[in-house]
Amino acid sequence: MYEEKFIDKAISLAKKAEKLDEVPVGAVIVKDGKIVSSAYNKREESRDATAHAEILAIKKACKKLNDFRLLGCDIYVSLEPCVMCMGAILNARLENLYFGASITSGSISAKELVELSNLNHKTNVFGGKKEEECSKLVTEYFKQKRKSKS
Amino acid sequence: MYEEKFIDKAISLAKKAEKLDEVPVGAVIVKDGKIVSSAYNKREESRDATAHAEILAIKKACKKLNDFRLLGCDIYVSLEPCVMCMGAILNARLENLYFGASITSGSISAKELVELSNLNHKTNVFGGKKEEECSKLVTEYFKQKRKSKS
Repeated sequence: MYEEKFIDKAISLAKKAEKLDEVPVGAVIVKDGKIVSSAYNKREESRDATAHAEILAIKKACKKLNDFRLLGCDIYVSLEPCVMCMGAILNARLENLYFGASITSGSISAKELVELSNLNHKTNVFGGKKEEECSKLVTEYFKQKRKSKS
Repeated sequence: MYEEKFIDKAISLAKKAEKLDEVPVGAVIVKDGKIVSSAYNKREESRDATAHAEILAIKKACKKLNDFRLLGCDIYVSLEPCVMCMGAILNARLENLYFGASITSGSISAKELVELSNLNHKTNVFGGKKEEECSKLVTEYFKQKRKSKS
């Protein structure tokens, strides 16, 4: 069941990433109304192409629950997951995905990936959570980046 | 440029995984004709949904080269990458992907994912490398698994 406080937590993590000059994305994994793990994007800091918020949160949750299947867990993300992260969400058998801003790069959507990966497990995908706030975070970040480059 | 010895190395890593009762998949990352990193699937051992051979090899290569962009690097995998791993290959900007056996689960193909992710970076995808040997590895593994369960 969707709870607004968890997307708020994802947003606050995204803001933390932004302060560290990372693309502002935050992710929270929840089970039975409680946070299992949370993370923000650390690609620049760790110089690791896989260190997106969702991957880091999934790794932590697997460790905590001692299982690669995160059954009964939901994930909240401030931005629609990329192909890698959506694949990880499906591999981890997360039940529901709630995300904020939609990807506007023309990439395949999270919802389409659920269908096209043709797995037995299907994650339910719900977008548009606090969309304006989440979207502003990312667009402002890239606007600032472009400014500082020019 | 494709070199058979690297897919052979990926196959030997897959065999190592099999001995440890992991789905047999091996991956090797190569730059300028030299191995940068290699890994085999460790999902069971690490109880981590993201611990596929490709992800582990990419993480190691990023660390070694101190960069999240693996420009000029190729990846050899014994099995066609899943959605998560193909997303990671694209995020890491790997130049060429050479894989052995094709995914037969009806999932979206690695090649289709390159197009549908609509990124500036496009990894070249070449399948069917030592396909029979690679395919046999996976089918035999699951045959044994089913036998031991019945």
